[in-house]
Amino acid sequence: MRALVYLGPGQKAVEERDKPIIQSPGDAVVRIVKTTICGTDLHILKGDVPTCTPGRVLGHEGVGIVDSVGAAVTGFKPGDRVLISCISSCGKCDYCRRGMYSHCTTGGWILGNEIDGTQAEYVRTPHADTSLYRIPDGIEEDALVMLSDILPTGFECGVLNGKIAPGSTVAIVGSGPIGLAALLTAQFYSPAQIIMIDLDDNRLEVARAFGATDTINSTNEKAAEKVKSLTGGLGVDTAIEAVGVPDTFVLCQNIVAAGGVIANVGVHGHKVDLHLERLWAQNIAITTRLVDTVTTPMLLKTVQAKKIDPLRLITHRFSFDRIMDAYQTFTDAAKTRALKVIISV
Amino acid sequence: MRALVYLGPGQKAVEERDKPIIQSPGDAVVRIVKTTICGTDLHILKGDVPTCTPGRVLGHEGVGIVDSVGAAVTGFKPGDRVLISCISSCGKCDYCRRGMYSHCTTGGWILGNEIDGTQAEYVRTPHADTSLYRIPDGIEEDALVMLSDILPTGFECGVLNGKIAPGSTVAIVGSGPIGLAALLTAQFYSPAQIIMIDLDDNRLEVARAFGATDTINSTNEKAAEKVKSLTGGLGVDTAIEAVGVPDTFVLCQNIVAAGGVIANVGVHGHKVDLHLERLWAQNIAITTRLVDTVTTPMLLKTVQAKKIDPLRLITHRFSFDRIMDAYQTFTDAAKTRALKVIISV
Amino acid sequence: MRALVYLGPGQKAVEERDKPIIQSPGDAVVRIVKTTICGTDLHILKGDVPTCTPGRVLGHEGVGIVDSVGAAVTGFKPGDRVLISCISSCGKCDYCRRGMYSHCTTGGWILGNEIDGTQAEYVRTPHADTSLYRIPDGIEEDALVMLSDILPTGFECGVLNGKIAPGSTVAIVGSGPIGLAALLTAQFYSPAQIIMIDLDDNRLEVARAFGATDTINSTNEKAAEKVKSLTGGLGVDTAIEAVGVPDTFVLCQNIVAAGGVIANVGVHGHKVDLHLERLWAQNIAITTRLVDTVTTPMLLKTVQAKKIDPLRLITHRFSFDRIMDAYQTFTDAAKTRALKVIISV
Amino acid sequence: MRALVYLGPGQKAVEERDKPIIQSPGDAVVRIVKTTICGTDLHILKGDVPTCTPGRVLGHEGVGIVDSVGAAVTGFKPGDRVLISCISSCGKCDYCRRGMYSHCTTGGWILGNEIDGTQAEYVRTPHADTSLYRIPDGIEEDALVMLSDILPTGFECGVLNGKIAPGSTVAIVGSGPIGLAALLTAQFYSPAQIIMIDLDDNRLEVARAFGATDTINSTNEKAAEKVKSLTGGLGVDTAIEAVGVPDTFVLCQNIVAAGGVIANVGVHGHKVDLHLERLWAQNIAITTRLVDTVTTPMLLKTVQAKKIDPLRLITHRFSFDRIMDAYQTFTDAAKTRALKVIISV
Repeated sequence: MRALVYLGPGQKAVEERDKPIIQSPGDAVVRIVKTTICGTDLHILKGDVPTCTPGRVLGHEGVGIVDSVGAAVTGFKPGDRVLISCISSCGKCDYCRRGMYSHCTTGGWILGNEIDGTQAEYVRTPHADTSLYRIPDGIEEDALVMLSDILPTGFECGVLNGKIAPGSTVAIVGSGPIGLAALLTAQFYSPAQIIMIDLDDNRLEVARAFGATDTINSTNEKAAEKVKSLTGGLGVDTAIEAVGVPDTFVLCQNIVAAGGVIANVGVHGHKVDLHLERLWAQNIAITTRLVDTVTTPMLLKTVQAKKIDPLRLITHRFSFDRIMDAYQTFTDAAKTRALKVIISV
Repeated sequence: MRALVYLGPGQKAVEERDKPIIQSPGDAVVRIVKTTICGTDLHILKGDVPTCTPGRVLGHEGVGIVDSVGAAVTGFKPGDRVLISCISSCGKCDYCRRGMYSHCTTGGWILGNEIDGTQAEYVRTPHADTSLYRIPDGIEEDALVMLSDILPTGFECGVLNGKIAPGSTVAIVGSGPIGLAALLTAQFYSPAQIIMIDLDDNRLEVARAFGATDTINSTNEKAAEKVKSLTGGLGVDTAIEAVGVPDTFVLCQNIVAAGGVIANVGVHGHKVDLHLERLWAQNIAITTRLVDTVTTPMLLKTVQAKKIDPLRLITHRFSFDRIMDAYQTFTDAAKTRALKVIISV
Repeated sequence: MRALVYLGPGQKAVEERDKPIIQSPGDAVVRIVKTTICGTDLHILKGDVPTCTPGRVLGHEGVGIVDSVGAAVTGFKPGDRVLISCISSCGKCDYCRRGMYSHCTTGGWILGNEIDGTQAEYVRTPHADTSLYRIPDGIEEDALVMLSDILPTGFECGVLNGKIAPGSTVAIVGSGPIGLAALLTAQFYSPAQIIMIDLDDNRLEVARAFGATDTINSTNEKAAEKVKSLTGGLGVDTAIEAVGVPDTFVLCQNIVAAGGVIANVGVHGHKVDLHLERLWAQNIAITTRLVDTVTTPMLLKTVQAKKIDPLRLITHRFSFDRIMDAYQTFTDAAKTRALKVIISV
Repeated sequence: MRALVYLGPGQKAVEERDKPIIQSPGDAVVRIVKTTICGTDLHILKGDVPTCTPGRVLGHEGVGIVDSVGAAVTGFKPGDRVLISCISSCGKCDYCRRGMYSHCTTGGWILGNEIDGTQAEYVRTPHADTSLYRIPDGIEEDALVMLSDILPTGFECGVLNGKIAPGSTVAIVGSGPIGLAALLTAQFYSPAQIIMIDLDDNRLEVARAFGATDTINSTNEKAAEKVKSLTGGLGVDTAIEAVGVPDTFVLCQNIVAAGGVIANVGVHGHKVDLHLERLWAQNIAITTRLVDTVTTPMLLKTVQAKKIDPLRLITHRFSFDRIMDAYQTFTDAAKTRALKVIISV
């Protein structure tokens, strides 16, 4: 089969690989129908993810058709159409039983990282019964690919941790795909204001189309002052960090209201300054989270009920033989205005 | 009347002052029976609290007897014995109605800070109906003084924010009065382990007597390693910061388990390093809080039911004419082993 | 001034009364601009509410302009435009401090019940600081009248107690004004299905226009079976009882899913059968609540942000001199299709 | 092997049976070391549990040693000492993933009910990885048997559902084994009062020894009046029903405070009267639950940390060849004062 393989920092190629086989009784092998590229794949390609070694098939998102299952798999059989979660969850360990699938002792984020992933014709998925999801009727496959990672990430790490509520005020720092996923899912809870902050006017325009009530280009505007003026001087009840650099995390500290929450979504490579000399008395919470994908069943229902349209996140579509172009388009997002790209296998 | 007055950094004196009078319909004037000294009073005396200006009567804790009340006060009358909360709460503003009394728009921590306090024969207490508490039968006055500030602070900022639960693991960094208040109230929830960390063996000995299951002197021991070894390598579910300096806050980051909480209680004067490059994927929460004293009614019930004995926090007793000695004893806590001192007025 | 007065079962009249005056320092007198009629007013007129004695001015909803305030009122002054809550809350008693304003020891539902109400040119409102709400800019007065009672009732007793969540399934038994208020506010949380059940096709048609995904006329259809078939055999996560008779409460027991909630909103006059022989093992919760109006500030924000349009509940408008016609129209709702009627004073 | 077999209403016998074998890859076969008898076993013997048919080996509690495991079992191997949960949980279905193991679509309470149980030398346990628990060091086997069912039942259905909190007031109606299990675990949360109500003075004496602050013999005393007088006229924050008959459930309705919770634990055979004509406005919650045993890991930690001593529930011990005597002793509890009996196999 063909697969997109990481060959070391800056290097990747489409290679011919053996089709994966069942290794454990809980495994499934899934024929990929659609997959996509994540910002994390670009991190790997920069050499920033030491757990991912050269030779690894990339990708942790996708939908497909079950090809074969191990002896212990009871929930799926060959021919079933499935959504593949980016998080593998055994359903048995202490973390899984507490709903913290991201820290599963034999799973977590391993696909396209510690084991071969979904940017290939086939993938082996461990813990299939608790890491695959049956596809409900009436949902487009492309939409479902958004449920592998980006929508649960924005929702769990940003919206749920951020305790967004009817009538509350929200700021999302970063209007890239993950910030936009938070924006879309934040609207499940009917906040009064969602202020989107970014450096790129195009992305802010997309944010307005997706439901942001206000946008701030922090290149030119003093973002903290603007947020304060938009919120009667109070700051926001929820500040979502969706970039992953020190400056944006500090901005969140400057715009969160007393009693509010800073919900971190961004992947950080450096320590940040925490201004406890001011915040110690502000009754705030700061939360971090690697997506657990515990809300996948809930999100499937919201998509099925048309409470959210994941297709809005998709800007480009490619066939697998053009996956190198897909990577280029996604990498050049500032120029191509790419959000998520769909790759048909 | 006599009062202990802040005269500028490093300076204080007992002075003769006019007895306070009712200024607003919601005020009460309370004759102080017992008061105490807080670590915050020492901060003021170092010049660290700019809102407290020279000439201010210090003190925000105490029990007393209502002397007079304003026209709008319905809950108290002269002669009532009352507990004075360190936080004045109007009960009307948005913050008060959300239970965030610490941010009351016309109250908060103002006693002995922005207005004259309780280290005097009389004190004027604004918003009396919602800032004083009737004393239930069968509780010693000395015990009640511990409910003005230190016990609700340890409980709300440390224990409640830290989500301590039956069978959970806790570390409290700092075994001074406030850390010990967290230790006492943590036991309301029956955690399996409470590990106390300090630099002073005497304080750790007190902690063991108060119910700590393990103690670590971080002068000699590698505290983070020891905590890990005491918790099967996982770290603690709840890390309570009860010191207020950067090093102890970093220690909390090193000992909190995935999925855990760092509950800050300490008063910080400087920014701290937050290691998001590691913590972003650890599903933790960090909380800050200025005590709201919303749990005062609950704490009164636990004291009355003998679920906690606040008298254990009291090490020294003075009459008001020896209040300068009381300050000295409290300041020299390392030598005197003082925790809380009671001053009878 | 003119006032609509309850004269005993089945009897009411517009009478001339003295304008009310301030009786306590916390009172305000408000000139009524708009008011409405509640189903509870009809209960009173049937003689079902013993606390309401003949001679009482009816009405507990409305907006107006502050005419005078007592000495202790700090939040309002003459000329302020205000929303009058149906619940008077002192902000001081144990219940108020726990957010249970409905049980305020000196308030609760007293307007138009134990003291004279709002269907008059003026009303005296006790505990004004914590029972009136400043009107934000940009909200129509008529819309605000819906925030005195019906919207917080549907929201607090039905939606919040019912724990409605994104993607969840809801049934509302009773498509009268209060059921429709629950329907409108349920949509704050993006449930997947809202099934509306009633005996009146007109009301079900309104429900569909208001956002119900399914409707059942239980005159002809077996409602429980239909709900099961609409929910894959599981029943609903939330069943809201918005009628107040034994049969509808039993229906809720027949349609709630294992793990679900029955949120009672209806005012009941009789005991009901609870089928614990089946429900004891179904992990359900049943909740009851007299509206507390603690969510009034939140609801004001959602109206201001246009997340909900309360005007949809208003079907008829009258001037005060036609208030007897307004009552007739509201009483004959089956014929007149009245939901809420606005009375301009 | 020998097994205690249900032979139809009123009939049981020790019979010789084949040792069970692995039937599914997720099964384990466990050699029983200790087991016990539950009130539910007596219900079965009365013919009240139609899912349990004649020929069934009874028993759903116990500790043992793993004898063999199926191919998919990864958490246990022969020789491991294990606690057997009364609830079998697949860990995969929607209910299990929501923590509602009691409603597992291929499990739930099946042991000693729909499949052969633990009152035998060996038992086959389905879904072994998620239904057995490794035994921590330092806990006596007899104590562990109390964690199969009775302690999680009292804790989950009574204490957690009842939202017991520091300083709160609790009444437990029924001082049998399950009421006492609620009493023991309620103390994890340091309530101020726990009032125990029963008809049997001996059981009330046990309750006092176990930590009840007050007891009421409802044979002679007007229980509701007494509870009111013990709680300042308010009633209790939490009323736990631990009997399962209409009268005791009505008593709970008469003693629950406004804003309180009635947590049902009892197994009911008949419908009960719910006095909604009074309770609709009392802001209460009523909860039901079949134990999920999701708190087993937490309870193991509390036992290990000596926060609770389950041995106190054990009054009698028998060897398996005297299991008929054990049943007799447990059935005649009023006379024998039996709480839980341990049977060594």
